[in-house]
Amino acid sequence: MSRTLYDLAGEDPACRFSPFCWRSRMALAHKGLEADAVPWRFTEGERLGFSGQGKVPVLVDSERTVADSWHIACWLEDRYADRPSLFDGEGGRAVSRFVNAWTDGVLHPQVARMVVADIPPLLAPADRAYFRESREKRFGMALERVSADRAERVEAFRREVLHPLRVTLGQQAWIGGEAPGYADYIVFGAFQWARVCSDFELLENGDPVATWRERVLDLHGGLARTVPARGAAAPASVAAAQ
Amino acid sequence: MSRTLYDLAGEDPACRFSPFCWRSRMALAHKGLEADAVPWRFTEGERLGFSGQGKVPVLVDSERTVADSWHIACWLEDRYADRPSLFDGEGGRAVSRFVNAWTDGVLHPQVARMVVADIPPLLAPADRAYFRESREKRFGMALERVSADRAERVEAFRREVLHPLRVTLGQQAWIGGEAPGYADYIVFGAFQWARVCSDFELLENGDPVATWRERVLDLHGGLARTVPARGAAAPASVAAAQ
Repeated sequence: MSRTLYDLAGEDPACRFSPFCWRSRMALAHKGLEADAVPWRFTEGERLGFSGQGKVPVLVDSERTVADSWHIACWLEDRYADRPSLFDGEGGRAVSRFVNAWTDGVLHPQVARMVVADIPPLLAPADRAYFRESREKRFGMALERVSADRAERVEAFRREVLHPLRVTLGQQAWIGGEAPGYADYIVFGAFQWARVCSDFELLENGDPVATWRERVLDLHGGLARTVPARGAAAPASVAAAQ
Repeated sequence: MSRTLYDLAGEDPACRFSPFCWRSRMALAHKGLEADAVPWRFTEGERLGFSGQGKVPVLVDSERTVADSWHIACWLEDRYADRPSLFDGEGGRAVSRFVNAWTDGVLHPQVARMVVADIPPLLAPADRAYFRESREKRFGMALERVSADRAERVEAFRREVLHPLRVTLGQQAWIGGEAPGYADYIVFGAFQWARVCSDFELLENGDPVATWRERVLDLHGGLARTVPARGAAAPASVAAAQ
């Protein structure tokens, strides 16, 4: 069976940083499903024409095409119902939508402000121009200005924005409960995005959110560690595997 | 079988405004369980000595005593597993803890700032002094100053704080999915608190969050409407029922 995930990449095809694509990669691994994560770039919208839209992630699972990370998670949960569950019941699926909305609407904008200026150098030339223009229009200023106050901003981010996450992880090992679930992957995507794009550290050592992030990085054979943190040397084994 | 819920009350014993107690009252109704919701006041901590702590809600279910709204929900879910589920699976229970943490840590402080000055006149005299002193110490200023900017503050509250809730309710009828669940009651408690304590309107007409709030008010025979909104006349039938 062929299975392909179109996955956002930097100029280096091994650089995979999309928080939404990481949700899908972790969901596939959770289900124990192989997929060829092929590199795709912002300015290659036409390559996704077959999906009826122009954004990643897009999963092609045999003859079925599924776009959008949430729909991919639901597809995997329903199609592979006999494999480990992403939601652990319909209530888990429903309430994970709130986690999805919080991550998209609260966590991502905060992370974006702190790492966005580090992204252009990672991108292929055509993407670099597209990214800077579209994001500077969105923020209404140069990307370097958007991220300029991050050293001060990160304090409130840790204390206030991450508070509900920290409380939850003080009560149970995973957002999904006793075992990781899709809610963990939703939130983790944001931290993986920052990890791959920027050497600016969002979390303090000892924060329960930081220890949880390490545990997610360890999941599924260390899948998310196969892409090195920005500024870290790629481990030899990973470099060889590329 | 006797079942008693100790429920925070104002000077008027019919005035029930605790967001945490409303979580438990809605959870009991969801399970189709009768309980005698007895009035309790802030300064009656000793009346709860049997529970090992001094806060409501406390549920006494035959010989079992359960304190804390989250533990009460879990007790009801596990003890009455054959009745309609509050969580619809273990994933729903786990991820609802995030909703609980978000509500306690983000939603409640925002609502508190906007309604806290309206609370003292509702309280019994001893509670009034306790409440003003403890809350003014917490906020570091007079309660009237805390709430003074609410007309401006409410705009960002609606647009930013409620954003994840609005997105979720744009995708499904309830936070719990196709049917209401405990996650709905967690969040609803904050709006019921504001509704009973203050005539300041947190929501705009037409906001999906407002239509959801109305639907929660209609649940379980309109249980949450049996306490009138502040400033509204009690419906004759409710007044008679008291």
